[in-house]
Amino acid sequence: MRNLYHFPLCPFSRKVRFILAEKNLDFELIQENFWERRRDFANLNPAMQVPVLVEDNITIPDSYAICEYIDAKYPENKLLGNSLEEGAGIRRLVSWFDNKFYNEVSKYLLNEKVFRFYTGVGGTHSDAIRVAKANLLPHLEYIRFLTDGYRWLMGGKLTLADIAAASHISVIDYLEEIPWDNFPEVKEWYALIKSQPSFRPILADRVLGFTPPKHYANLDF
Amino acid sequence: MRNLYHFPLCPFSRKVRFILAEKNLDFELIQENFWERRRDFANLNPAMQVPVLVEDNITIPDSYAICEYIDAKYPENKLLGNSLEEGAGIRRLVSWFDNKFYNEVSKYLLNEKVFRFYTGVGGTHSDAIRVAKANLLPHLEYIRFLTDGYRWLMGGKLTLADIAAASHISVIDYLEEIPWDNFPEVKEWYALIKSQPSFRPILADRVLGFTPPKHYANLDF
Repeated sequence: MRNLYHFPLCPFSRKVRFILAEKNLDFELIQENFWERRRDFANLNPAMQVPVLVEDNITIPDSYAICEYIDAKYPENKLLGNSLEEGAGIRRLVSWFDNKFYNEVSKYLLNEKVFRFYTGVGGTHSDAIRVAKANLLPHLEYIRFLTDGYRWLMGGKLTLADIAAASHISVIDYLEEIPWDNFPEVKEWYALIKSQPSFRPILADRVLGFTPPKHYANLDF
Repeated sequence: MRNLYHFPLCPFSRKVRFILAEKNLDFELIQENFWERRRDFANLNPAMQVPVLVEDNITIPDSYAICEYIDAKYPENKLLGNSLEEGAGIRRLVSWFDNKFYNEVSKYLLNEKVFRFYTGVGGTHSDAIRVAKANLLPHLEYIRFLTDGYRWLMGGKLTLADIAAASHISVIDYLEEIPWDNFPEVKEWYALIKSQPSFRPILADRVLGFTPPKHYANLDF
Protein backbone atom coordinates (compact mmCIF):
# COMPACT_ATOMS: atom_id res chain seq x y z
CA MET A 1 0.00 0.00 0.00
CA ARG A 2 1.30 3.42 -0.93
CA ASN A 3 -0.62 6.67 -0.30
CA LEU A 4 0.48 10.17 -1.16
CA TYR A 5 -1.12 13.12 0.60
CA HIS A 6 -0.77 16.01 -1.80
CA PHE A 7 -2.24 19.23 -3.14
CA PRO A 8 -2.49 19.47 -6.95
CA LEU A 9 -0.84 22.90 -7.20
CA CYS A 10 1.91 22.20 -4.65
CA PRO A 11 5.24 21.95 -6.56
CA PHE A 12 6.74 19.66 -3.89
CA SER A 13 3.79 17.26 -4.21
CA ARG A 14 4.25 17.26 -7.99
CA LYS A 15 7.93 16.42 -7.57
CA VAL A 16 7.04 13.31 -5.55
CA ARG A 17 4.32 12.20 -7.99
CA PHE A 18 6.79 12.59 -10.84
CA ILE A 19 9.55 10.54 -9.16
CA LEU A 20 7.08 7.79 -8.10
CA ALA A 21 5.81 7.53 -11.68
CA GLU A 22 9.37 7.52 -13.10
CA LYS A 23 10.07 4.56 -10.80
CA ASN A 24 6.88 2.81 -12.01
CA LEU A 25 5.48 2.69 -8.50
CA ASP A 26 1.72 2.59 -7.97
CA PHE A 27 0.19 4.95 -5.47
CA GLU A 28 -3.13 6.38 -4.32
CA LEU A 29 -3.46 10.15 -4.32
CA ILE A 30 -5.22 11.80 -1.39
CA GLN A 31 -5.87 15.51 -1.75
CA GLU A 32 -5.06 17.32 1.49
CA ASN A 33 -6.24 20.91 1.87
CA PHE A 34 -3.50 21.45 4.44
CA TRP A 35 -4.66 24.98 5.37
CA GLU A 36 -7.76 23.39 6.97
CA ARG A 37 -5.39 21.94 9.60
CA ARG A 38 -7.16 18.59 9.83
CA ARG A 39 -6.24 16.88 13.11
CA ASP A 40 -5.57 13.45 11.56
CA PHE A 41 -3.19 15.07 9.12
CA ALA A 42 -1.34 16.82 11.97
CA ASN A 43 -0.65 13.35 13.38
CA LEU A 44 0.93 12.32 10.09
CA ASN A 45 2.97 15.50 9.77
CA PRO A 46 3.20 18.03 12.61
CA ALA A 47 4.60 20.53 10.07
CA MET A 48 1.11 20.47 8.45
CA GLN A 49 2.63 20.44 4.98
CA VAL A 50 2.20 18.29 1.91
CA PRO A 51 3.50 16.00 0.51
CA VAL A 52 3.43 13.07 2.93
CA LEU A 53 4.09 9.53 1.70
CA VAL A 54 2.74 6.53 3.57
CA GLU A 55 4.36 3.32 2.30
CA ASP A 56 3.36 0.16 4.15
CA ASN A 57 3.77 1.25 7.78
CA ILE A 58 6.27 4.03 7.14
CA THR A 59 5.16 7.66 7.12
CA ILE A 60 7.52 10.09 5.42
CA PRO A 61 6.73 13.80 5.34
CA ASP A 62 8.77 16.26 3.26
CA SER A 63 9.66 15.96 -0.41
CA TYR A 64 13.41 15.96 0.29
CA ALA A 65 13.11 12.99 2.66
CA ILE A 66 10.69 11.20 0.32
CA CYS A 67 12.78 11.58 -2.85
CA GLU A 68 16.00 10.44 -1.14
CA TYR A 69 14.14 7.44 0.29
CA ILE A 70 12.50 6.47 -3.00
CA ASP A 71 15.66 6.83 -5.09
CA ALA A 72 17.69 4.71 -2.66
CA LYS A 73 14.97 2.07 -2.11
CA TYR A 74 14.20 1.62 -5.83
CA PRO A 75 17.66 2.08 -7.39
CA GLU A 76 16.73 1.08 -10.92
CA ASN A 77 16.67 4.25 -13.04
CA LYS A 78 18.66 6.36 -10.56
CA LEU A 79 17.38 9.94 -10.51
CA LEU A 80 19.94 11.24 -8.01
CA GLY A 81 22.99 10.23 -10.04
CA ASN A 82 25.23 7.23 -10.56
CA SER A 83 28.21 8.73 -8.73
CA LEU A 84 28.69 10.94 -5.67
CA GLU A 85 29.87 13.82 -7.88
CA GLU A 86 26.87 13.54 -10.19
CA GLY A 87 24.60 13.31 -7.16
CA ALA A 88 26.06 16.53 -5.74
CA GLY A 89 25.42 18.35 -9.04
CA ILE A 90 21.83 17.12 -9.17
CA ARG A 91 21.12 17.96 -5.51
CA ARG A 92 22.54 21.47 -5.93
CA LEU A 93 19.99 22.08 -8.71
CA VAL A 94 17.13 20.45 -6.81
CA SER A 95 17.93 22.83 -3.96
CA TRP A 96 18.11 25.76 -6.41
CA PHE A 97 14.54 25.12 -7.55
CA ASP A 98 13.07 24.01 -4.21
CA ASN A 99 14.63 26.86 -2.26
CA LYS A 100 15.72 29.76 -4.47
CA PHE A 101 13.07 29.44 -7.19
CA TYR A 102 10.35 28.59 -4.66
CA ASN A 103 11.13 31.49 -2.33
CA GLU A 104 11.63 34.02 -5.14
CA VAL A 105 8.82 32.95 -7.48
CA SER A 106 6.46 30.03 -6.69
CA LYS A 107 5.73 30.95 -3.07
CA TYR A 108 4.65 34.51 -3.92
CA LEU A 109 2.44 33.46 -6.84
CA LEU A 110 0.85 30.56 -4.95
CA ASN A 111 0.21 32.61 -1.81
CA GLU A 112 -1.18 35.63 -3.62
CA LYS A 113 -3.12 33.91 -6.40
CA VAL A 114 -4.18 30.56 -4.92
CA PHE A 115 -3.99 30.18 -1.14
CA ARG A 116 -5.44 33.61 -0.39
CA PHE A 117 -8.47 32.54 -2.48
CA TYR A 118 -8.91 29.31 -0.50
CA THR A 119 -8.21 30.70 2.96
CA GLY A 120 -9.92 34.07 2.43
CA VAL A 121 -7.24 35.74 4.57
CA GLY A 122 -6.15 39.27 3.59
CA GLY A 123 -6.18 41.12 0.27
CA THR A 124 -3.91 40.43 -2.70
CA HIS A 125 -0.53 42.18 -2.66
CA SER A 126 0.00 43.08 -6.30
CA ASP A 127 3.59 44.07 -5.37
CA ALA A 128 4.40 40.46 -4.48
CA ILE A 129 3.03 39.25 -7.84
CA ARG A 130 5.06 41.89 -9.67
CA VAL A 131 8.25 40.89 -7.81
CA ALA A 132 7.66 37.18 -8.53
CA LYS A 133 7.15 37.86 -12.26
CA ALA A 134 10.39 39.86 -12.39
CA ASN A 135 12.28 37.20 -10.40
CA LEU A 136 11.05 34.49 -12.78
CA LEU A 137 13.01 35.84 -15.76
CA PRO A 138 16.60 35.15 -14.58
CA HIS A 139 15.45 31.66 -13.53
CA LEU A 140 14.14 30.93 -17.05
CA GLU A 141 17.42 32.30 -18.39
CA TYR A 142 19.28 29.91 -16.05
CA ILE A 143 17.29 26.91 -17.38
CA ARG A 144 18.15 28.08 -20.91
CA PHE A 145 21.85 28.25 -19.92
CA LEU A 146 21.79 24.79 -18.29
CA THR A 147 20.06 23.08 -21.21
CA ASP A 148 22.16 24.83 -23.90
CA GLY A 149 23.24 21.97 -26.19
CA TYR A 150 21.65 19.33 -23.96
CA ARG A 151 18.26 17.68 -23.64
CA TRP A 152 18.10 17.85 -19.86
CA LEU A 153 19.43 20.09 -17.07
CA MET A 154 22.29 17.73 -16.21
CA GLY A 155 22.98 16.68 -19.82
CA GLY A 156 21.79 13.51 -21.50
CA LYS A 157 19.49 12.01 -18.87
CA LEU A 158 16.41 13.13 -16.96
CA THR A 159 17.27 13.54 -13.26
CA LEU A 160 15.62 14.84 -10.11
CA ALA A 161 16.89 18.30 -11.14
CA ASP A 162 14.52 18.27 -14.15
CA ILE A 163 11.75 16.84 -12.00
CA ALA A 164 12.11 19.62 -9.40
CA ALA A 165 12.36 22.36 -12.05
CA ALA A 166 9.37 21.04 -14.01
CA SER A 167 7.29 20.80 -10.85
CA HIS A 168 7.71 24.51 -10.17
CA ILE A 169 7.46 25.59 -13.81
CA SER A 170 4.25 23.61 -14.37
CA VAL A 171 2.54 25.24 -11.38
CA ILE A 172 3.51 28.72 -12.64
CA ASP A 173 2.30 27.71 -16.12
CA TYR A 174 -1.06 26.62 -14.66
CA LEU A 175 -1.33 30.21 -13.39
CA GLU A 176 -0.43 31.44 -16.90
CA GLU A 177 2.68 33.31 -15.80
CA ILE A 178 5.39 31.82 -18.06
CA PRO A 179 6.35 34.11 -20.98
CA TRP A 180 7.02 31.16 -23.30
CA ASP A 181 7.50 33.28 -26.44
CA ASN A 182 10.64 34.86 -24.97
CA PHE A 183 12.21 31.54 -24.03
CA PRO A 184 11.97 29.13 -26.99
CA GLU A 185 14.82 26.91 -25.71
CA VAL A 186 13.18 26.52 -22.31
CA LYS A 187 9.94 25.70 -24.11
CA GLU A 188 11.78 22.92 -25.95
CA TRP A 189 13.00 21.42 -22.66
CA TYR A 190 9.53 21.69 -21.15
CA ALA A 191 7.93 20.09 -24.22
CA LEU A 192 10.16 17.06 -23.58
CA ILE A 193 9.03 17.00 -19.95
CA LYS A 194 5.39 17.20 -21.02
CA SER A 195 5.85 14.23 -23.33
CA GLN A 196 6.95 11.93 -20.47
CA PRO A 197 4.21 9.42 -19.57
CA SER A 198 5.24 9.91 -15.93
CA PHE A 199 4.30 13.58 -16.12
CA ARG A 200 1.00 13.38 -18.04
CA PRO A 201 -1.27 12.62 -15.03
CA ILE A 202 0.01 15.74 -13.26
CA LEU A 203 -1.07 17.90 -16.20
CA ALA A 204 -4.55 16.35 -16.12
CA ASP A 205 -5.23 17.68 -12.59
CA ARG A 206 -7.56 20.63 -12.05
CA VAL A 207 -8.34 22.55 -8.86
CA LEU A 208 -11.49 24.34 -7.81
CA GLY A 209 -11.60 27.99 -8.83
CA PHE A 210 -8.65 27.98 -11.24
CA THR A 211 -8.66 27.07 -14.92
CA PRO A 212 -5.27 26.72 -16.61
CA PRO A 213 -4.60 28.33 -20.02
CA LYS A 214 -5.47 26.30 -23.14
CA HIS A 215 -1.83 25.44 -23.88
CA TYR A 216 -1.21 24.08 -20.37
CA ALA A 217 -1.66 20.35 -21.01
CA ASN A 218 -0.94 20.40 -24.76
CA LEU A 219 2.26 18.78 -25.94
CA ASP A 220 2.32 21.32 -28.75
CA PHE A 221 2.19 24.77 -27.15
CA MET B 1 42.76 20.05 -0.27
CA ARG B 2 39.41 20.98 1.20
CA ASN B 3 38.11 24.57 1.42
CA LEU B 4 34.83 25.75 2.84
CA TYR B 5 33.46 29.13 1.86
CA HIS B 6 31.27 30.20 4.74
CA PHE B 7 29.91 33.04 6.84
CA PRO B 8 30.23 32.62 10.63
CA LEU B 9 26.59 33.46 11.41
CA CYS B 10 25.12 31.44 8.51
CA PRO B 11 23.33 28.38 10.00
CA PHE B 12 23.85 26.36 6.80
CA SER B 13 27.61 27.03 6.91
CA ARG B 14 27.64 25.93 10.56
CA LYS B 15 25.87 22.72 9.64
CA VAL B 16 28.62 21.84 7.14
CA ARG B 17 31.46 22.75 9.56
CA PHE B 18 29.82 20.55 12.17
CA ILE B 19 29.45 17.51 9.87
CA LEU B 20 33.02 17.88 8.52
CA ALA B 21 34.36 17.98 12.09
CA GLU B 22 32.20 14.99 13.12
CA LYS B 23 33.79 13.08 10.23
CA ASN B 24 37.29 14.15 11.38
CA LEU B 25 37.95 15.85 8.05
CA ASP B 26 40.42 18.75 7.87
CA PHE B 27 39.37 21.88 6.04
CA GLU B 28 40.33 25.51 5.51
CA LEU B 29 37.67 28.10 6.28
CA ILE B 30 37.30 31.04 3.92
CA GLN B 31 34.93 33.77 5.08
CA GLU B 32 32.76 34.92 2.19
CA ASN B 33 30.76 38.13 2.64
CA PHE B 34 28.34 36.90 -0.01
CA TRP B 35 26.32 40.14 -0.11
CA GLU B 36 29.39 41.84 -1.68
CA ARG B 37 28.71 39.67 -4.76
CA ARG B 38 32.38 38.95 -5.50
CA ARG B 39 32.79 37.87 -9.12
CA ASP B 40 35.09 34.91 -8.36
CA PHE B 41 32.54 33.63 -5.88
CA ALA B 42 29.77 33.88 -8.48
CA ASN B 43 31.81 31.49 -10.61
CA LEU B 44 31.88 28.98 -7.75
CA ASN B 45 28.17 29.35 -7.01
CA PRO B 46 25.84 31.32 -9.29
CA ALA B 47 23.28 31.30 -6.46
CA MET B 48 25.74 33.59 -4.56
CA GLN B 49 25.09 31.72 -1.32
CA VAL B 50 27.29 30.10 1.31
CA PRO B 51 28.31 27.43 2.09
CA VAL B 52 30.36 26.13 -0.86
CA LEU B 53 32.72 23.19 -0.41
CA VAL B 54 35.71 22.72 -2.71
CA GLU B 55 37.20 19.24 -2.27
CA ASP B 56 40.09 18.41 -4.61
CA ASN B 57 38.64 19.51 -7.97
CA ILE B 58 34.97 19.19 -7.04
CA THR B 59 32.94 22.29 -6.19
CA ILE B 60 29.73 21.67 -4.26
CA PRO B 61 27.43 24.56 -3.37
CA ASP B 62 24.46 24.14 -1.05
CA SER B 63 24.45 22.54 2.40
CA TYR B 64 21.96 19.83 1.36
CA ALA B 65 24.20 18.67 -1.52
CA ILE B 66 27.34 18.94 0.64
CA CYS B 67 25.97 16.97 3.62
CA GLU B 68 24.61 14.15 1.42
CA TYR B 69 27.96 13.99 -0.39
CA ILE B 70 30.06 13.97 2.78
CA ASP B 71 27.93 11.39 4.59
CA ALA B 72 28.02 9.02 1.61
CA LYS B 73 31.71 9.54 0.80
CA TYR B 74 32.89 9.10 4.41
CA PRO B 75 30.46 6.47 5.70
CA GLU B 76 32.17 5.84 9.04
CA ASN B 77 29.99 7.44 11.74
CA LYS B 78 26.87 7.74 9.54
CA LEU B 79 24.97 10.94 10.34
CA LEU B 80 22.10 10.30 7.91
CA GLY B 81 21.10 6.96 9.40
CA ASN B 82 21.98 3.30 9.10
CA SER B 83 18.76 2.34 7.33
CA LEU B 84 16.47 3.94 4.77
CA GLU B 85 13.73 4.40 7.36
CA GLU B 86 16.09 6.03 9.84
CA GLY B 87 17.45 8.22 7.05
CA ALA B 88 13.93 9.39 6.18
CA GLY B 89 13.26 10.35 9.80
CA ILE B 90 16.53 12.28 10.04
CA ARG B 91 16.02 14.08 6.71
CA ARG B 92 12.49 15.09 7.67
CA LEU B 93 13.90 16.85 10.74
CA VAL B 94 16.81 18.40 8.82
CA SER B 95 14.24 19.83 6.45
CA TRP B 96 12.13 21.02 9.39
CA PHE B 97 15.01 23.10 10.72
CA ASP B 98 16.49 24.19 7.38
CA ASN B 99 13.14 25.18 5.90
CA LYS B 100 10.46 25.70 8.52
CA PHE B 101 12.65 26.97 11.37
CA TYR B 102 14.82 29.00 8.99
CA ASN B 103 11.90 30.69 7.22
CA GLU B 104 9.92 31.32 10.42
CA VAL B 105 12.76 32.32 12.75
CA SER B 106 16.43 32.45 11.62
CA LYS B 107 15.86 34.30 8.34
CA TYR B 108 13.95 37.16 9.98
CA LEU B 109 16.43 37.60 12.81
CA LEU B 110 19.49 37.38 10.56
CA ASN B 111 18.05 39.76 7.97
CA GLU B 112 16.83 42.32 10.46
CA LYS B 113 19.63 42.20 13.00
CA VAL B 114 22.72 41.21 10.99
CA PHE B 115 22.54 41.58 7.22
CA ARG B 116 20.81 44.96 7.30
CA PHE B 117 23.76 46.17 9.41
CA TYR B 118 26.32 44.90 6.87
CA THR B 119 24.51 45.93 3.70
CA GLY B 120 23.10 49.21 5.06
CA VAL B 121 19.92 48.62 3.06
CA GLY B 122 16.62 49.81 4.63
CA GLY B 123 15.56 50.30 8.24
CA THR B 124 14.89 47.58 10.78
CA HIS B 125 11.36 46.12 10.76
CA SER B 126 10.66 45.54 14.44
CA ASP B 127 7.52 43.62 13.39
CA ALA B 128 9.63 40.93 11.74
CA ILE B 129 11.75 40.55 14.89
CA ARG B 130 8.61 40.27 17.03
CA VAL B 131 7.14 37.61 14.70
CA ALA B 132 10.39 35.61 14.72
CA LYS B 133 10.57 35.68 18.52
CA ALA B 134 6.96 34.43 18.76
CA ASN B 135 7.59 31.74 16.12
CA LEU B 136 10.64 30.52 18.01
CA LEU B 137 8.63 29.28 21.01
CA PRO B 138 6.73 26.36 19.38
CA HIS B 139 10.02 25.27 17.77
CA LEU B 140 11.74 25.12 21.18
CA GLU B 141 8.71 23.21 22.45
CA TYR B 142 9.10 20.79 19.53
CA ILE B 143 12.78 20.17 20.42
CA ARG B 144 11.66 19.53 24.01
CA PHE B 145 9.07 17.04 22.72
CA LEU B 146 11.58 15.26 20.46
CA THR B 147 14.26 14.92 23.13
CA ASP B 148 11.83 13.89 25.90
CA GLY B 149 13.52 10.83 27.47
CA TYR B 150 16.35 10.84 24.90
CA ARG B 151 19.76 12.45 24.60
CA TRP B 152 19.36 13.43 20.95
CA LEU B 153 16.55 14.37 18.55
CA MET B 154 16.44 10.91 16.98
CA GLY B 155 17.10 9.01 20.22
CA GLY B 156 20.44 7.63 21.34
CA LYS B 157 22.81 8.96 18.70
CA LEU B 158 23.76 12.38 17.35
CA THR B 159 22.57 12.71 13.74
CA LEU B 160 22.35 15.40 11.08
CA ALA B 161 19.01 16.38 12.65
CA ASP B 162 20.83 17.55 15.81
CA ILE B 163 23.51 19.19 13.68
CA ALA B 164 20.93 21.17 11.67
CA ALA B 165 18.92 22.15 14.77
CA ALA B 166 22.04 23.21 16.70
CA SER B 167 23.28 25.27 13.76
CA HIS B 168 20.12 27.38 13.80
CA ILE B 169 19.80 27.51 17.60
CA SER B 170 23.42 28.61 18.02
CA VAL B 171 23.01 31.52 15.61
CA ILE B 172 19.89 32.69 17.44
CA ASP B 173 21.73 32.28 20.74
CA TYR B 174 24.61 34.45 19.42
CA LEU B 175 21.93 37.13 18.91
CA GLU B 176 20.74 36.52 22.51
CA GLU B 177 17.22 35.53 21.51
CA ILE B 178 16.79 32.11 23.17
CA PRO B 179 14.71 32.24 26.38
CA TRP B 180 16.74 29.43 28.00
CA ASP B 181 15.12 29.74 31.43
CA ASN B 182 11.74 28.63 30.02
CA PHE B 183 13.16 25.56 28.28
CA PRO B 184 15.42 23.68 30.73
CA GLU B 185 15.15 20.38 28.77
CA VAL B 186 16.20 22.06 25.53
CA LYS B 187 19.08 23.65 27.42
CA GLU B 188 20.16 20.16 28.49
CA TRP B 189 20.20 18.96 24.87
CA TYR B 190 22.11 22.07 23.77
CA ALA B 191 24.64 21.66 26.63
CA LEU B 192 25.44 18.23 25.19
CA ILE B 193 25.86 19.76 21.73
CA LYS B 194 28.16 22.44 23.14
CA SER B 195 30.33 19.79 24.76
CA GLN B 196 31.09 18.10 21.42
CA PRO B 197 34.70 18.79 20.31
CA SER B 198 33.32 19.04 16.75
CA PHE B 199 31.15 22.00 17.76
CA ARG B 200 33.63 23.99 19.90
CA PRO B 201 35.39 25.84 17.03
CA ILE B 202 32.02 27.16 15.80
CA LEU B 203 31.36 28.73 19.20
CA ALA B 204 34.78 30.43 19.14
CA ASP B 205 33.88 32.48 16.04
CA ARG B 206 33.10 36.18 16.31
CA VAL B 207 31.86 38.59 13.64
CA LEU B 208 32.43 42.32 13.28
CA GLY B 209 29.81 44.46 14.99
CA PHE B 210 28.15 41.73 17.07
CA THR B 211 29.18 40.44 20.48
CA PRO B 212 27.42 37.31 21.74
CA PRO B 213 26.08 37.13 25.32
CA LYS B 214 28.47 35.90 28.04
CA HIS B 215 26.83 32.46 28.26
CA TYR B 216 27.14 31.84 24.50
CA ALA B 217 30.32 29.74 24.43
CA ASN B 218 30.15 28.49 28.02
CA LEU B 219 29.44 24.82 28.56
CA ASP B 220 27.74 25.79 31.79
CA PHE B 221 25.03 28.33 30.95
